[in-house]
Amino acid sequence: MKTMKVLLEDHEIPRQWYNIQADLPTPMRPPLHPATGKPVGPEDLAPIFPMNLIEQEVSTERWIDIPEEVLEKYLIWRPTPLCRARNFEKLLNAPVKIYYKMEGNSPAGSHKPNTAIPQAYYNKIAGIKHLSTETGAGQWGSALSMACQMFGLGCRVFMVKVSYEQKPYRRMMMNVWGAECIPSPSNLTEAGRNVLAEHPDSPGSLGIAISEAIEDAIAHPQAKYSLGSVLNHVMLHQTIIGLEAQKQMAKIGVYPDVVMGCAGGGSNFAGISLPYVRDKIHGKDVKIVGAEPTSCPTLTRGPFAYDFGDLAKKTPLLPMHTLGHDYVPAPIHAGGLRYHGMAPIVSHLVMDNLVEARAYHQIDTFEAGVMWARSEGFIPAPETCHVIAAVVDEARRAKEEGKEKVILFNWSGHGMVDLASYDAYLTGKLIPYEMPDEEIARALRAIEGFPKP
Amino acid sequence: MKTMKVLLEDHEIPRQWYNIQADLPTPMRPPLHPATGKPVGPEDLAPIFPMNLIEQEVSTERWIDIPEEVLEKYLIWRPTPLCRARNFEKLLNAPVKIYYKMEGNSPAGSHKPNTAIPQAYYNKIAGIKHLSTETGAGQWGSALSMACQMFGLGCRVFMVKVSYEQKPYRRMMMNVWGAECIPSPSNLTEAGRNVLAEHPDSPGSLGIAISEAIEDAIAHPQAKYSLGSVLNHVMLHQTIIGLEAQKQMAKIGVYPDVVMGCAGGGSNFAGISLPYVRDKIHGKDVKIVGAEPTSCPTLTRGPFAYDFGDLAKKTPLLPMHTLGHDYVPAPIHAGGLRYHGMAPIVSHLVMDNLVEARAYHQIDTFEAGVMWARSEGFIPAPETCHVIAAVVDEARRAKEEGKEKVILFNWSGHGMVDLASYDAYLTGKLIPYEMPDEEIARALRAIEGFPKP
Repeated sequence: MKTMKVLLEDHEIPRQWYNIQADLPTPMRPPLHPATGKPVGPEDLAPIFPMNLIEQEVSTERWIDIPEEVLEKYLIWRPTPLCRARNFEKLLNAPVKIYYKMEGNSPAGSHKPNTAIPQAYYNKIAGIKHLSTETGAGQWGSALSMACQMFGLGCRVFMVKVSYEQKPYRRMMMNVWGAECIPSPSNLTEAGRNVLAEHPDSPGSLGIAISEAIEDAIAHPQAKYSLGSVLNHVMLHQTIIGLEAQKQMAKIGVYPDVVMGCAGGGSNFAGISLPYVRDKIHGKDVKIVGAEPTSCPTLTRGPFAYDFGDLAKKTPLLPMHTLGHDYVPAPIHAGGLRYHGMAPIVSHLVMDNLVEARAYHQIDTFEAGVMWARSEGFIPAPETCHVIAAVVDEARRAKEEGKEKVILFNWSGHGMVDLASYDAYLTGKLIPYEMPDEEIARALRAIEGFPKP
Repeated sequence: MKTMKVLLEDHEIPRQWYNIQADLPTPMRPPLHPATGKPVGPEDLAPIFPMNLIEQEVSTERWIDIPEEVLEKYLIWRPTPLCRARNFEKLLNAPVKIYYKMEGNSPAGSHKPNTAIPQAYYNKIAGIKHLSTETGAGQWGSALSMACQMFGLGCRVFMVKVSYEQKPYRRMMMNVWGAECIPSPSNLTEAGRNVLAEHPDSPGSLGIAISEAIEDAIAHPQAKYSLGSVLNHVMLHQTIIGLEAQKQMAKIGVYPDVVMGCAGGGSNFAGISLPYVRDKIHGKDVKIVGAEPTSCPTLTRGPFAYDFGDLAKKTPLLPMHTLGHDYVPAPIHAGGLRYHGMAPIVSHLVMDNLVEARAYHQIDTFEAGVMWARSEGFIPAPETCHVIAAVVDEARRAKEEGKEKVILFNWSGHGMVDLASYDAYLTGKLIPYEMPDEEIARALRAIEGFPKP
């Protein structure tokens, strides 16, 4: 009988998150205040985040202790197993060993609670009573709803309207966890009302929903805003994935040749890969690859530039790969990962050639996802299908090169509430889509004249 | 930091299933042939099951080896963790320690693959190419779809029509795994056509769907029928749950005072409890409790009698607690566990006072489920909510008695594709419902004149 999983006992859970900012070969560019063009200070962020999270955002300490109260909640489902995909390997018939970190068995079904729980905790101890946030497909909104409930905070989620309507189960999930879920654009905020005045039928976008959530947080006493990806402290919290994976691979004496994750805002990809980027900075030979959709090709086609995180320009200017803050991916795109920007940390690592990116067509991603489900059983989230497509691609390359490879990837979430997208794929309703050059050029006009990093 | 989980490594997975028939203090009554009233022999079952499963059905061997090919698939997600529900305990504020066996993290989201995989395997090695089955809420149909795909078998699932319409994601899940899902009653079978002729708008029932699946299997060459609960071999396969739990509790030196599961056809309840029933037969002081809905109170209100497993009377007469084979639970009932009968093994154990049963109102079960989700995170399937209601009840009793208790229960499945039922509960659309005496009397007329056990 061959071993399929490497486990960690509760007491083996990592007690610290890893902060890549301590090890970067070149320093990150600071976020800029849009009015002054000067680096933003902690006081600029104070209206929307509690000071303890702002400190994490700018910290250069290498290791940051995970609070006991956070560990207690993590232990409900963490450490997650490191699994060997033997059945999928057989199907690919390539010289690869495939290991995946199973993040789909959290209560919310994805890696998102890894940061939702500490964010709720830090807000709680800072005296905050309520969090506002946005969500696209719903993974983040449901994770934060659960975390807020666990720490007794109120929670309001602005959900991109088209997803709100297509994925009613996500809204219901948030309700089960006691949160309020509002389709965005809404009439509750000025940002929402402005969009609705111009486009009453707007399907919404993450950029709009972020604007609404920030405005909502600022408007209420003892309320703050919470973001599920992009920011440094989010990447920090997610490193527990890669830290666990390193312990697990060490147990079986294996080191990966390639580490992969899908990349939307960058958090699950950073989560599995940052501890390996550290190894790479220290000379280890490891390839680190982010997989994104050709319909929202932020890393592969967007420039590294200063841009806003949201449509209404309420965030600081962030140094990141971007398709422009008013970009809304074509409705044709069913696979998630629709954010116009990318985490500054991930963008920085791409610029420093420590990380690379590849883009995949949605048909290929769902094909890979169905192959996975039919061999390994678990049905991956559409987002996760992107990294599985990248694994298939990497296995093909290994076969062509005649080279044995160990692949590690982050199985970021399950697709139990995204089955309508699979149905569209299986019934031939999806078409391949690649963002055309002229659309990219048009989208990028939004950042013309912004400071250059 | 307090431990929350007890794990088993892959190599610690049990290699044999436990067969309670070897240890029963009184022998089970045989199933009867409806035409002759005589016990059915293996040859009577051969049209619908392969001989290797029929042998398991009637075996009195105590331990039955789990084939290597089955273990390989089990290891994708098994052994499952034994978890301590510390957050839920805090909420209950009663002198109880609550452990649960997490069966919701299988690829299909429930305990059902524990028997779907061996059933597909045994059919495969018997030369069968295709399986037909029925499903109610969809847990079983999706599990068998996955298992058939893993072993290269075709699969057709007759799904109770009202669930087919209310739970489209379950049908899609089956499609992802390559199976065909048909709303029942259908025009594909005589059984279905007969129902439709009389009740064109029939919402369907498990009894009807079983009739259709059996007829479909018999009509096709190299096809057999597969059942997800009730039968002895299904209970056998599910014992892996309880066997793992015993190993895990032994690791921490704890023995449960109470073992609980929800009971529809009986398979998840039997799965966790049969190894403990064995202990009880050998003198151990342990209480074993099945939880069922007041709207389908098979064990608490139905007599122990001979009855058919399906509406069209295609099965043998089974000795079991039953509400009559033509009973269809009120549409008002949202919580699953709608089968009219109960596994003969479970029924037998109730008659021998080794196992007891309690019934819960649906409002109480969803209330318990929401309490669970808001403290422990995971959203339980409506079926699982029944056992959680029983745990709440047991904790209350412990508090009243001032007695410390260790509770072990089977967390049989997650509710990610059953969120519409939660939504109905949260928006006040569910009402309490208890099957009235006169309805029970009417339902039981279906078994008048049948042989008595």
